[in-house]
Amino acid sequence: MATSLIRGRYVICEAGTDTGRSRVITDGAVLQRDGVIESVGTYDELKEREVDEVIGGPRFLVMPGLTNSHHHGRGVSTFQMGTTDGCLEPWIVEGWGRRSVDWRLITLYTAIQMIKSGTTSVMYNHPRTPVTGMADEAEQVLQGFGGAGMRTAFSVYYRGQNRVVYHDDEAFLSRLPSDLADAVRRYLSVTDMTEDDYFSSFESLRESHGAEASGGLVSVLLSPSNAQWASDEFFFRTKELSARYGAAVHMHLVESWYQKEYGIRTWGKTPVAHLADLGFLGPELSCAHSVWLTEGDIELLADSGATVCHNPSSNLRLKNGIAPVNAMLAGGVNVAMGTDSTALNDDDDMLQEMRLASKLHRQPGLERPALDTHQTLRLATANAARPTGFEGRIGALEPGRYADMVLLDWDAMTAPYFEGSGDSVADAVNTVVYRGKSAHVDTVMINGEVVLRGGRFVKADEEEITDELREQLARPIEQETLATRQMAARLLPYIEEFYGDWNIPSDGPHYLYNGRM
Amino acid sequence: MATSLIRGRYVICEAGTDTGRSRVITDGAVLQRDGVIESVGTYDELKEREVDEVIGGPRFLVMPGLTNSHHHGRGVSTFQMGTTDGCLEPWIVEGWGRRSVDWRLITLYTAIQMIKSGTTSVMYNHPRTPVTGMADEAEQVLQGFGGAGMRTAFSVYYRGQNRVVYHDDEAFLSRLPSDLADAVRRYLSVTDMTEDDYFSSFESLRESHGAEASGGLVSVLLSPSNAQWASDEFFFRTKELSARYGAAVHMHLVESWYQKEYGIRTWGKTPVAHLADLGFLGPELSCAHSVWLTEGDIELLADSGATVCHNPSSNLRLKNGIAPVNAMLAGGVNVAMGTDSTALNDDDDMLQEMRLASKLHRQPGLERPALDTHQTLRLATANAARPTGFEGRIGALEPGRYADMVLLDWDAMTAPYFEGSGDSVADAVNTVVYRGKSAHVDTVMINGEVVLRGGRFVKADEEEITDELREQLARPIEQETLATRQMAARLLPYIEEFYGDWNIPSDGPHYLYNGRM
Repeated sequence: MATSLIRGRYVICEAGTDTGRSRVITDGAVLQRDGVIESVGTYDELKEREVDEVIGGPRFLVMPGLTNSHHHGRGVSTFQMGTTDGCLEPWIVEGWGRRSVDWRLITLYTAIQMIKSGTTSVMYNHPRTPVTGMADEAEQVLQGFGGAGMRTAFSVYYRGQNRVVYHDDEAFLSRLPSDLADAVRRYLSVTDMTEDDYFSSFESLRESHGAEASGGLVSVLLSPSNAQWASDEFFFRTKELSARYGAAVHMHLVESWYQKEYGIRTWGKTPVAHLADLGFLGPELSCAHSVWLTEGDIELLADSGATVCHNPSSNLRLKNGIAPVNAMLAGGVNVAMGTDSTALNDDDDMLQEMRLASKLHRQPGLERPALDTHQTLRLATANAARPTGFEGRIGALEPGRYADMVLLDWDAMTAPYFEGSGDSVADAVNTVVYRGKSAHVDTVMINGEVVLRGGRFVKADEEEITDELREQLARPIEQETLATRQMAARLLPYIEEFYGDWNIPSDGPHYLYNGRM
Repeated sequence: MATSLIRGRYVICEAGTDTGRSRVITDGAVLQRDGVIESVGTYDELKEREVDEVIGGPRFLVMPGLTNSHHHGRGVSTFQMGTTDGCLEPWIVEGWGRRSVDWRLITLYTAIQMIKSGTTSVMYNHPRTPVTGMADEAEQVLQGFGGAGMRTAFSVYYRGQNRVVYHDDEAFLSRLPSDLADAVRRYLSVTDMTEDDYFSSFESLRESHGAEASGGLVSVLLSPSNAQWASDEFFFRTKELSARYGAAVHMHLVESWYQKEYGIRTWGKTPVAHLADLGFLGPELSCAHSVWLTEGDIELLADSGATVCHNPSSNLRLKNGIAPVNAMLAGGVNVAMGTDSTALNDDDDMLQEMRLASKLHRQPGLERPALDTHQTLRLATANAARPTGFEGRIGALEPGRYADMVLLDWDAMTAPYFEGSGDSVADAVNTVVYRGKSAHVDTVMINGEVVLRGGRFVKADEEEITDELREQLARPIEQETLATRQMAARLLPYIEEFYGDWNIPSDGPHYLYNGRM
């Protein structure tokens, strides 16, 4: 579709602007040409323009497409794949035994689910780095997202150390029964990769699939997986390459208290302070989770211009806590949102995830802060756009940005009655954040192309894709996978024992949700 | 339908038994006769029995109907009615200005929405006690629930003091501009009611609509609204009447920190300790919210056999915090669940509310507790049954209990793939708690009667009901309501000023979700 006019009862152009409110046009419209927004205004101003198609109408609310800023695929959830939620550290090891998947197919399936709940861009972080086949996997994942028409900030994460517990791999393995240690060594060797190999594969991936090659649909990012999982040298080289190519960097950071404690034990300071010392923080960096930030950490992140990708469901599900989002926002940190593929309802529903965040950060009492709806929607739009490599091109509806947007059924969201406050800006934003559900997502446009219409994905046959996936996954699980499961099960008691004397101290939380005394 | 056989791939007979697990029958069936369960067993054992109808099949999971143990109606949410979420105390006063509704119609609408998400019983607490017309309103509400076929534990709450802030009404009003004070006096006088009137209306309601009159579909409860809102004398008389009639008692309790602080300032002890001193606690009592419980309070509640009705979404939305559910369960308190009509998605979806609870109470770290799925489902079934007046008759599927149950579409819940852990008990319960949504609710039976079939309410025409409600609410808002709003808006600054020096101390939370230092 070369040109189209997208009309809505409300058009949310930008959520959570400098005013603390949002820019909303009542009976508004967006005109897009070849995937780029040309004009935004009232429907009356734009209705005479010649376009190939008019989309939407007074029944709909139009808003920027959501960006899921931390995601690992897994349209078939870790729970569906056999891993129930646990404490992060043993949960990761349990996940070693998940069955293999067809990356293209499962990514395509995942992307369709995300689109159906209003997501148009994703920060995808590939969860394995097999030394052989990495280029293949990346290719397949990008084909999957490409097939769904989804805008993708792609990275493969690198873990070079402390991969079983937060301690030198060999030192930890040497304490295990030797057959178990050998099995773990063999398992780890599959994903062993030199730093050189990682960086050269980044360069070739960037060349073959990056912004230029993809016409702006893909950006390729660097990703040290987390402070404890990569060497200082790796962080230096990442920073250097990032600067050379203008590439963004994505990582995990103090997801669990144990990761913070590792920093204290290893460097005598928090992981954030350590990365600051390395000169690693900067506006190109986005950090998932970031639950266990001190006040000093928040200052360091804010000063550097780094982004925190907030994953409220994942942080609860994996027993990591509640990130101090209000303190981060007050401190000037750019906070974004994502589902981490472990969302509240075991799907990748960003509308539900936004809502959870908007409730979770309502600190008790009159005096204490609460995340408001304008901020909440901003976390999943403009703020999330910043670290993707698409900054300034997504996250808001204004001329020059990509035509990535979502139409929600206003009548269904507000049925059977909505009084309205007489404040159209608040009504539009509040309604999405209080009541918007995936069932209300009617139309989704990415790059000017309608990918969802009337709630149905239109770029491919979803049923066929689902059937193919179901058929593939009905096959018996590989012997090797079953062996890995046994190995992981044997490992778990040693992991728990390792953390046995790491105890969260009971003082000084950011949030006070209840009181023992 | 005199008899029916309800079959499921899994039948969850009772969630969270003494074993810490659940009783689940694989390929099970429930045989009900005239609304009462006669047999529960495998389908093979029961398939030869002659019945009028076989319901369900291997595609479905069967479980006890959910009990929403704290609810105030409001199928059209407070947000839809014009009140955005705020801190409880001013939020209540803002709510004074909500428009009047047709109680029968809105209750019927609400009940249908609840049934569609698997709720079969409700603890309904009527939010107003107008001196005239109270019997009428109660009648209308009960007609609404009756029209939906929903089992109802009904109470009208009593507020006799401290109705504007937690301070003597006249003492507070005397500080206001006199015209504002007079307006508030007039507003309050509408719901003024003597204790005598309250108790005699309880008695007549019990007579006309209680268990005997309703054939077990309705129980009538007593309800002092909260510790600060009723006199010691009222609590004494409630206890006495409760004992005389074997009636259950429902109330709010330390919903906000301010309510706890009122207790400290007024009685020199927590509200729970005060009620214990009055001899008021007991197994007949259920307390909504109960966020700000001390360790000593938890012990008192546990020893008395009282129930706490947990309302996680409401507690977040109204800035009250997170109730220490893990500590309560460890201490032996009977914890139930409810939506308080301010659920996460602004509806009354108990499946979603259960899921929120199951994630919210996952305290960080390996050592700290997390609510498991068996416990979670129990909160909304067997535990919630206890304080309703229907104890032993609902909340589990076993011979002699009412045939109140829900069929969820297993295939839809697990699509496109579910590996299963080989542990059918865990798989059944985990799947409901991780992934069950209202969209998966296929069939709901209450008292042996199918009220939802194929996801459609079958006792009345939902669309017609919705249309009638929409039409009623489209009428202009009454002048009196608009005047009340103006009065409430004028009051708010005085309320905030009143609580100005009430500050939550920053020490000793039950949960540590993050760390400043």
